[in-house]
Amino acid sequence: MTPYELIRAKRDGGALPADALRSLLADYARGDLPDYQMAALCMAVFFRGLDESELRTWTEAMLRSGATLKRRPGSPPRVDKHSTGGVGDKVSICLAPLVAACGLAVPMVSGRGLGHTGGTLDKLAAIPGFRTHLSLAEADRVLDALGVCMLGQTEELAPADKRLYALRDVTATVESIPLIAASILSKKLAEDLDGLVLDVKLGSGAFMHTRESAGQLARTLVELAREMGCRAVAWLTSMHAPLGRAVGNANELLEAVDVLRGKGPADVRALTLQLGAEMLVLGGRAGNVPEAERLLEAAIADGSALAVLEALVRAQGGDPAVLEMPEVLLGPLETADVAAPRAGHVTDMDTLAVGLAAVVLGAGRTRTDDVIDHGVGFSVLRHPGEWVERGEPVFLVHHRPGQDVAEVRRRLAASVRVSEEVAPVPPLLLERVEASG
Amino acid sequence: MTPYELIRAKRDGGALPADALRSLLADYARGDLPDYQMAALCMAVFFRGLDESELRTWTEAMLRSGATLKRRPGSPPRVDKHSTGGVGDKVSICLAPLVAACGLAVPMVSGRGLGHTGGTLDKLAAIPGFRTHLSLAEADRVLDALGVCMLGQTEELAPADKRLYALRDVTATVESIPLIAASILSKKLAEDLDGLVLDVKLGSGAFMHTRESAGQLARTLVELAREMGCRAVAWLTSMHAPLGRAVGNANELLEAVDVLRGKGPADVRALTLQLGAEMLVLGGRAGNVPEAERLLEAAIADGSALAVLEALVRAQGGDPAVLEMPEVLLGPLETADVAAPRAGHVTDMDTLAVGLAAVVLGAGRTRTDDVIDHGVGFSVLRHPGEWVERGEPVFLVHHRPGQDVAEVRRRLAASVRVSEEVAPVPPLLLERVEASG
Repeated sequence: MTPYELIRAKRDGGALPADALRSLLADYARGDLPDYQMAALCMAVFFRGLDESELRTWTEAMLRSGATLKRRPGSPPRVDKHSTGGVGDKVSICLAPLVAACGLAVPMVSGRGLGHTGGTLDKLAAIPGFRTHLSLAEADRVLDALGVCMLGQTEELAPADKRLYALRDVTATVESIPLIAASILSKKLAEDLDGLVLDVKLGSGAFMHTRESAGQLARTLVELAREMGCRAVAWLTSMHAPLGRAVGNANELLEAVDVLRGKGPADVRALTLQLGAEMLVLGGRAGNVPEAERLLEAAIADGSALAVLEALVRAQGGDPAVLEMPEVLLGPLETADVAAPRAGHVTDMDTLAVGLAAVVLGAGRTRTDDVIDHGVGFSVLRHPGEWVERGEPVFLVHHRPGQDVAEVRRRLAASVRVSEEVAPVPPLLLERVEASG
Repeated sequence: MTPYELIRAKRDGGALPADALRSLLADYARGDLPDYQMAALCMAVFFRGLDESELRTWTEAMLRSGATLKRRPGSPPRVDKHSTGGVGDKVSICLAPLVAACGLAVPMVSGRGLGHTGGTLDKLAAIPGFRTHLSLAEADRVLDALGVCMLGQTEELAPADKRLYALRDVTATVESIPLIAASILSKKLAEDLDGLVLDVKLGSGAFMHTRESAGQLARTLVELAREMGCRAVAWLTSMHAPLGRAVGNANELLEAVDVLRGKGPADVRALTLQLGAEMLVLGGRAGNVPEAERLLEAAIADGSALAVLEALVRAQGGDPAVLEMPEVLLGPLETADVAAPRAGHVTDMDTLAVGLAAVVLGAGRTRTDDVIDHGVGFSVLRHPGEWVERGEPVFLVHHRPGQDVAEVRRRLAASVRVSEEVAPVPPLLLERVEASG
């Protein structure tokens, strides 16, 4: 079948033969399929979806377009976590060293922030000298030595997916559940994993806005991972509030480090423990979640998890001493508050608006080539469900001396609703999804 | 709105603001919009359609991407006909001079054949020396002098539509009724017409396969034309059989000339008179169709229509004397027959298969750069509804001496069904469609 015939078949709701689809995607990976045909196909997929076989073929084709992080015989089981992205999500930074401290290998490839969602890489990049752009050979060495590495998406892993994502991004074909699943797993499975935990976030500040679409994405991901030989569990988690109290980059890093010191906000700690426990079970280090949680808590209590993070910072070019020097990480800051207009319960917070306010402040980017300020950010003093007195701050804005933050404060003020009535607050952990059968 | 936002809005079923769509299409016309965004938009339009305002904006943008055949003050009303293409359709060749002979101006821009449908230009190009590639300035001169010109789509008229059609052709986005309508009218309205008659063909050998889609296209065309200031009438006509008895190029030209001599097959003659009468009414030369038909019949009877065609052939570089020299037009031919396997009624003819057999014979092309043989073709001796004895020919294949026509004969034999039962045959003229209100 020609590319034209495949586009037409998908457009009309037909099934694409695996061989023909594989050959088309291999052509795309080699640069032999024009972008306009790929764009038309992606739009047809947006409307018609992909069946199980097509989805697997698609994911494998993207995966095979690049190298993989191959495991050496005798190395520990390998697990990872992927989050669909949210506001204030710094879990990876404490989770990866914590799970590594429990004896599994965590080859974590992360993204940079774009739009209203932050990126793990930007938070790590707040550490002077820390190198996030490792070659696969360097990543291999760090991983072998410490059981963990944290790096950015390289040109070596699933390069065709990177190109395809850029195309989807400008052709309004990102919001297709099978294409999202193929993109996530083609990159994650290039890490040659035994187990993968997926954090599918739901809410205004998340990629998925409805329970239905988030559930569908979670099921698609775990089934597809299993089909491709990787055990997977997904959690739907709520983005009704920023995760934790810090939104920014260096301040989020510090909050994640707090978790490894046995402190930190309850929600960040709870999510880290739940996802980490799932990883230990998938990697065979624990028989069940409660047992796994005890192992994780011990690795926090005895300082071994923090020691892994410090070793990682050193191995990737940073000085772990700065983790105890906020003034170095943050630089000179002043603080402005966003006060509650009345006394009441915080009933609702528009996390998308909070994320976009962070972009306006300079902590995030709207274009991939925007330069960000790692030190600025917010403290979220009140979450939905909490009481605030009139005139008490809901947010603190940490900004550079002399920086105009009127627009940032306006956006934050508009993002929150305070009411005398109590409104129900969803639990952080909404639903666990595993592969059927 | 950015191109991304427009694609996304169309994808999600929203309406596109006229200004934003106009600006996007102007960018495309200038070459400033990447093909991949246009391809994604066209696929979204395939699924979501275009509303009345979007369709008009789209058509105007394509029209304005090029020059127009401007009318001089005092010149006669200008009318034209467009057919969606079929097998054996040679009507334009007799229709244009006939209507011009009745005092209207007919600036006919036609296409070349592709796939199973023939093209008016290829039939005219059977005349040695006849030039179908006129500049707009040359076309203007011929039109002023004779009231008619017949030329190919130039780079000057609606060039953005030409580029867009090529893109749709490789991205499986051709079969969209609004995009088809915009493409047709952007080219035809560049002729600055007072009236346009549309022949929307229906059947296996036509572009539209169902009565519903053909009706929808016809209604879309007449409403859009009226919106844009051109009176229009459409006829749904049946492609249950090739039109006339000749399928090819030079032989179709000869059959069209026969009509201007008061001869020719009844169906070609009937369709020519009906479409021509509509053109005379639209152009104000007759008050109604019967009156218009009398004018047309008179122009045939007194030889004035044939004289216009002869003058046109001369003006565009040919020698009209060859219209009476089949041996010059056709060249050396031999004949093979395709006989009926049993006595009975011809109940069904697959006109798509007949058109594809003509391509195999060499009378048509599958790629725009294929070279065709203008002399070869078929005679269709029996149409659906007619009786044939066992062993009598249904088709004659006119081929070059020594040419292997086994495959052509096999295809033609498979295209026809002969049965003892009588099956109903649809009328050629199925339905007249005019703008509402």
